[in-house]
Amino acid sequence: MTHPEPSPTDQQQALQKLGEIRRSIDNLDAAMIHILAERFRHTQQVGVLKAKHDLPASDPGREKLQVERLRNLAHDAELDPEFAEKFLNFIIAEVIHHHHRIAEQRGE
Amino acid sequence: MTHPEPSPTDQQQALQKLGEIRRSIDNLDAAMIHILAERFRHTQQVGVLKAKHDLPASDPGREKLQVERLRNLAHDAELDPEFAEKFLNFIIAEVIHHHHRIAEQRGE
Repeated sequence: MTHPEPSPTDQQQALQKLGEIRRSIDNLDAAMIHILAERFRHTQQVGVLKAKHDLPASDPGREKLQVERLRNLAHDAELDPEFAEKFLNFIIAEVIHHHHRIAEQRGE
Repeated sequence: MTHPEPSPTDQQQALQKLGEIRRSIDNLDAAMIHILAERFRHTQQVGVLKAKHDLPASDPGREKLQVERLRNLAHDAELDPEFAEKFLNFIIAEVIHHHHRIAEQRGE
């Protein structure tokens, strides 16, 4: 497929539009960083609770429910459910890594 | 290090507290899924613009700035900056994958 060479004005408009979209993306990323920070504050508490009460670091039953729930939410928001699942697994891997570290620091 | 056996009441309280924290985590995850959905709506637009105006799918200069900015935001929010960078790379990999798919669909 061929298409006409874009004029400099088209390019300029495209770059301006690109800049605008990127500012929105930057805002969304900042929001996610803050939510992630808050999420890790909560999982840090979970880690301390689990270490103190000898509960296992990972919880497959809970993770299965989380995956199902987030896949449904993703579907409704038109986000690829596969990506939502990968995203959750990516975060959970980090959380388990933190929990092991908490358990080690407690010498248990 | 040893510690006294927790009483059933301690365990019950711990599990109740765990349930409460998990409800907050679930709310934060739902928020992130919706922000991610919105982010991909924006990068979808970027992908179309880039394909239409023959701009490269990835942009190392932009990515370097994004990493620096998010590492700083993470630091201020007491989130591990290394994790923030891994998180951004995880998302960008998915975005580039989408952009290649858009370019292929346009037959360019």
